[in-house]
Amino acid sequence: MSRIDGRTPEQLRQVTIERGWSKHAEGSVLVSFGDTKVFCTASVTEGVPRWRKGSGEGWVTAEYSMLPRATNTRGDRESVRGKIGGRTHEISRLIGRSLRAVIDYKALGENTIVLDCDVLQADGGTRTAAITGAYVALADAISWAQGKKLVRAGRQPLTGTVSAVSVGIVGGVPLLDLCYEEDVRAETDMNVVCTGDGRFVEVQGTAEAEPFAREELNSLLDLAVSGCDELAVLQRKALDTVLEK
Amino acid sequence: MSRIDGRTPEQLRQVTIERGWSKHAEGSVLVSFGDTKVFCTASVTEGVPRWRKGSGEGWVTAEYSMLPRATNTRGDRESVRGKIGGRTHEISRLIGRSLRAVIDYKALGENTIVLDCDVLQADGGTRTAAITGAYVALADAISWAQGKKLVRAGRQPLTGTVSAVSVGIVGGVPLLDLCYEEDVRAETDMNVVCTGDGRFVEVQGTAEAEPFAREELNSLLDLAVSGCDELAVLQRKALDTVLEK
Amino acid sequence: MSRIDGRTPEQLRQVTIERGWSKHAEGSVLVSFGDTKVFCTASVTEGVPRWRKGSGEGWVTAEYSMLPRATNTRGDRESVRGKIGGRTHEISRLIGRSLRAVIDYKALGENTIVLDCDVLQADGGTRTAAITGAYVALADAISWAQGKKLVRAGRQPLTGTVSAVSVGIVGGVPLLDLCYEEDVRAETDMNVVCTGDGRFVEVQGTAEAEPFAREELNSLLDLAVSGCDELAVLQRKALDTVLEK
Amino acid sequence: MSRIDGRTPEQLRQVTIERGWSKHAEGSVLVSFGDTKVFCTASVTEGVPRWRKGSGEGWVTAEYSMLPRATNTRGDRESVRGKIGGRTHEISRLIGRSLRAVIDYKALGENTIVLDCDVLQADGGTRTAAITGAYVALADAISWAQGKKLVRAGRQPLTGTVSAVSVGIVGGVPLLDLCYEEDVRAETDMNVVCTGDGRFVEVQGTAEAEPFAREELNSLLDLAVSGCDELAVLQRKALDTVLEK
Amino acid sequence: MSRIDGRTPEQLRQVTIERGWSKHAEGSVLVSFGDTKVFCTASVTEGVPRWRKGSGEGWVTAEYSMLPRATNTRGDRESVRGKIGGRTHEISRLIGRSLRAVIDYKALGENTIVLDCDVLQADGGTRTAAITGAYVALADAISWAQGKKLVRAGRQPLTGTVSAVSVGIVGGVPLLDLCYEEDVRAETDMNVVCTGDGRFVEVQGTAEAEPFAREELNSLLDLAVSGCDELAVLQRKALDTVLEK
Amino acid sequence: MSRIDGRTPEQLRQVTIERGWSKHAEGSVLVSFGDTKVFCTASVTEGVPRWRKGSGEGWVTAEYSMLPRATNTRGDRESVRGKIGGRTHEISRLIGRSLRAVIDYKALGENTIVLDCDVLQADGGTRTAAITGAYVALADAISWAQGKKLVRAGRQPLTGTVSAVSVGIVGGVPLLDLCYEEDVRAETDMNVVCTGDGRFVEVQGTAEAEPFAREELNSLLDLAVSGCDELAVLQRKALDTVLEK
Repeated sequence: MSRIDGRTPEQLRQVTIERGWSKHAEGSVLVSFGDTKVFCTASVTEGVPRWRKGSGEGWVTAEYSMLPRATNTRGDRESVRGKIGGRTHEISRLIGRSLRAVIDYKALGENTIVLDCDVLQADGGTRTAAITGAYVALADAISWAQGKKLVRAGRQPLTGTVSAVSVGIVGGVPLLDLCYEEDVRAETDMNVVCTGDGRFVEVQGTAEAEPFAREELNSLLDLAVSGCDELAVLQRKALDTVLEK
Repeated sequence: MSRIDGRTPEQLRQVTIERGWSKHAEGSVLVSFGDTKVFCTASVTEGVPRWRKGSGEGWVTAEYSMLPRATNTRGDRESVRGKIGGRTHEISRLIGRSLRAVIDYKALGENTIVLDCDVLQADGGTRTAAITGAYVALADAISWAQGKKLVRAGRQPLTGTVSAVSVGIVGGVPLLDLCYEEDVRAETDMNVVCTGDGRFVEVQGTAEAEPFAREELNSLLDLAVSGCDELAVLQRKALDTVLEK
Repeated sequence: MSRIDGRTPEQLRQVTIERGWSKHAEGSVLVSFGDTKVFCTASVTEGVPRWRKGSGEGWVTAEYSMLPRATNTRGDRESVRGKIGGRTHEISRLIGRSLRAVIDYKALGENTIVLDCDVLQADGGTRTAAITGAYVALADAISWAQGKKLVRAGRQPLTGTVSAVSVGIVGGVPLLDLCYEEDVRAETDMNVVCTGDGRFVEVQGTAEAEPFAREELNSLLDLAVSGCDELAVLQRKALDTVLEK
Repeated sequence: MSRIDGRTPEQLRQVTIERGWSKHAEGSVLVSFGDTKVFCTASVTEGVPRWRKGSGEGWVTAEYSMLPRATNTRGDRESVRGKIGGRTHEISRLIGRSLRAVIDYKALGENTIVLDCDVLQADGGTRTAAITGAYVALADAISWAQGKKLVRAGRQPLTGTVSAVSVGIVGGVPLLDLCYEEDVRAETDMNVVCTGDGRFVEVQGTAEAEPFAREELNSLLDLAVSGCDELAVLQRKALDTVLEK
Repeated sequence: MSRIDGRTPEQLRQVTIERGWSKHAEGSVLVSFGDTKVFCTASVTEGVPRWRKGSGEGWVTAEYSMLPRATNTRGDRESVRGKIGGRTHEISRLIGRSLRAVIDYKALGENTIVLDCDVLQADGGTRTAAITGAYVALADAISWAQGKKLVRAGRQPLTGTVSAVSVGIVGGVPLLDLCYEEDVRAETDMNVVCTGDGRFVEVQGTAEAEPFAREELNSLLDLAVSGCDELAVLQRKALDTVLEK
Repeated sequence: MSRIDGRTPEQLRQVTIERGWSKHAEGSVLVSFGDTKVFCTASVTEGVPRWRKGSGEGWVTAEYSMLPRATNTRGDRESVRGKIGGRTHEISRLIGRSLRAVIDYKALGENTIVLDCDVLQADGGTRTAAITGAYVALADAISWAQGKKLVRAGRQPLTGTVSAVSVGIVGGVPLLDLCYEEDVRAETDMNVVCTGDGRFVEVQGTAEAEPFAREELNSLLDLAVSGCDELAVLQRKALDTVLEK
């Protein structure tokens, strides 16, 4: 049985990771998972938020947002509504936590890195694309900071790599990397964030239509782990390219 | 090895579920998981939000909030700050999704039930206590609506029961129902929402210090499922009592 | 002629003042005036707001709020609406002024006490119940601060006691401590805050239906003063009990 | 003993009531109590707020505000801060209630009158000047509505007149109509709103420094009633003038 | 062909500039352009915003606002809506820029002057009246600051004078100083701010109905320059009067 | 004398206009003026805002925003601050007015087109690039609406073309299409919006350092008109290409 877009159940969409997409940001990536496109920038500033001053430790945080016409019908801007919605808050927090999982705060020193993930076009899986792309922008930003001697030599602030993918059960079949049309029809929907060594940073599974059984959970986790593995390879490849700025 | 409060790893705190705590609400519960106390009310109104009108289907939603001094140091009120924080949004959405998982919208008809979960005292696990208590308030509200003939006879709007518990790994040991002090020290923290038949509604695991391995995830899920089972028994017991209002 | 709930015109509802209702707050009380229940906490922090720094004087302030289903029909949360309503502002200010009337700022030293009064269930008189309960929470918080040596020995920050009650004219008859149903039907409504020695801290009378004459004002003041006296006795009794925490 | 500005204790400041100060508003007044100047407009619109539709009854409401430099040091604009402060809310509500006390809603019909009271210069007593001026603007607006046949003939929407004044105890002496400098030093401060027949619409007394005794309250009420009487005469005089527009 | 109000195309409305309209502000003016009346105050404070500290330079900024019933139909207050509209922002920024164009920041020293321009009555041209009036209030405030020695002697913070006027094409005819009725019917609308020596500070032309040609632009600029000249004479006259405060 | 980036004074930066950049929007363009990149989408919806219903006329409006790291140092998101800044408001209004200048509302019928202009990277001239790009997106959206028969045949809603460019005086020399570094050093800065037939839609000139003389204004206008002409050619070229979607 093949999927809407002809993929097999365990197949990712075409994933591209373009670095150096901004002339201003210390790290920047345009990541695509099929038609989902997220623009990720990493901004480095010296110093940390007030509550962390004097700790000798750095901080990493993230903000996620959708352009109003990233989706099929235009949504109101959160700036115009005057407040950030729950979904935006939730995803921003998820991205921040995921990337902090591979940061050694001491090695980063009292520097702050903000990851901005702006969805230019949405077709399902925007949060997992954002995490996967933001990791690459973060890695570039840290290299930049090391080049500028903002970060002390001898200790690597990045303790590993991190990537993320969505999985779900559609029509009883576990699928990897859902596009929007699949996502809408999924009975169960899960976002999984893994480190490069195959361990879990976040597991967020939600029953959309029907509660799910332990075996279903297990097969979804299997799919997700292998998807994250593939993404980790693509991240490494992207970072191995020499970036001319 | 015993825990801070003398429990074994797989032991819940003392859980109490007091119904009928409000003279106004259609369903109301004061739920305690040890020192965590959440006041849950279920409010029934005829009609549904605009986007659902004419569908013949009902709606269930939730709002979670903490009193400013529910915690050890006083927090600012979100009403005073003029906006709702990300954590509040995230938990409100989780509670809503969890309870909608056991609702048959058609059977509910065009009625709306709002679950308000206000934390009077916090000691870890407020979101899982809220879900567990809100289920009981919801059940009472539905009975009330059936009594008032707001809900048609012959089809039960509740398709099952739902309860929730937190689990985590502290000092390498998987523990059930973390209190605040354990939660702060946890390497991994997971909230699990189950139906009464042992299937999953939500699984949210987060690596706080270290990414977690598949086996750790598995043992946390085992603990959580058995904890939710126990809570389902307590919910049933609470609902079996005749409530004099 | 007896009242809706069988009371005589000059009779209070059953008033209970339960101390120690929070394990976190320095002072805490659940106060009930009949079915009106307000949870009051007093939070002590060292230091004062910026405009008072270096003055050697302390500060006391209050925040009042209603849980959304404290009333017969659910009200929107002010945090969700993104702003505090006029009624909430007005009552918070009243509670703050009332309690500051019995505070010696110099004796308090540069400490701040915030009184949070959250209405769990409303049946008229929530602001007067809040003041009456908050006084007891405040007294406990000051004792705590004295025990911790935050407040210098030798000078008592509390210069007196304070309690409050509502009075009103219903069907031409002056009544003490109106319940909601009476309040709605009152021609004139007055909230009076007195010190334990029978003097006035606040007098707020409002003609709801008809302007009121000087004699009516006088009889309402008589009722209120005697009601506050009774409440002062109950406050003292509550504070005389040894609280085991 | 004479006052800061040479008045006797029972003497009003110079009060002027200039009608027709706006070419747009249906009623408009510039009222001065000494250096306190408030610009009051009354705006009539057909129709009533949603919750009152179909009742056949009208509505009157008020909004009070201070220009940023109405005071000795500039205050931030509430529009810039993005929220209305408690004091503004409280005074707007007081003005609205005071004027509604002399309105027959049925006679007004389904029309709404909004009273805007903007303080151009403040020197104490802004809320009482606002009520006194707004009454005159309201009377003009109602005449206008009668002229336009928006209000049915035969029944007068105004059931009486209303005026307001502040009183207070300064240095032990009860004083009428406090200017700012007196207000700051007052031990007790009271705002009283009376109808033209000498009955009370609002009595709001606050102990600023010391609780006040019943006799003090009584002498303040005496002063206020006679002050309101004088203001009622000035209101009548202003309204008797033929206004050329 | 004469205009609605009988003026010739190149004629200003009657302009009055009354100084000393506030007893609190360091400079204050009530400016009228026909029925447009704007109350301008200039408030001096020592110190500058954070981003300018230590520069030795001062700052001048402006806030524009309309009273709710300045216009023919009442508008909602921006403080009530909780946000400032685009038009208000735009005009506040224009006024600030216009007045900063004649300020020598070094000569002003680290002092801040805020210009508040509150429209009491609107009949077209409120922003240009505001600029013209604010200049006079600013000049008075600077004199005050020089008198108080806040500003060092020997160097004049004002480098010139500034005035503003609106021009537009109505029915094909270029007109000076549009009143509201003309403004509504204008095909092209332009606001011009000039210094006393006839140079431009701001030129803002907008096609309302039809794009405009270069010759039209030229004749509008001619009109505006001569109008600003006249206003500069009136400003000088107003400032030459001895102000008794 | 050549410019920072080697251009002559009357030379545009490299301008590219890529259509079809979004799979969801009815019209979409990525426009670049050198390093300034703006993503413009045009969203068509049937119906118009409430105040225009039943008029038979359509509506066009615009929203401008900068991604947080579009600039050299990261700026806070307006959604996070909870309000839109004055600059954003001003530019959104300018874009909307500019495009409405070439719309025949009757021919558009009761449809609304929203133009979203999100700056991905800023290097001066973002508002003029946005207008130039938004015109092309608008033209595509209107073609789409014609294809869908939302717009009646026989009457073209677009009455002309519109483009915009910035000009300024830097070091005494009038320059076309300023990059950021030039913009910062400009003595005078002007944004000009022209129709394809060389008439003006908007002229906004601002003295940044020194008031400007009439001759300077004239030479800036000359430059701008010829720049807009060139841009009109590029727009036409972009629209002549067949877009494969």
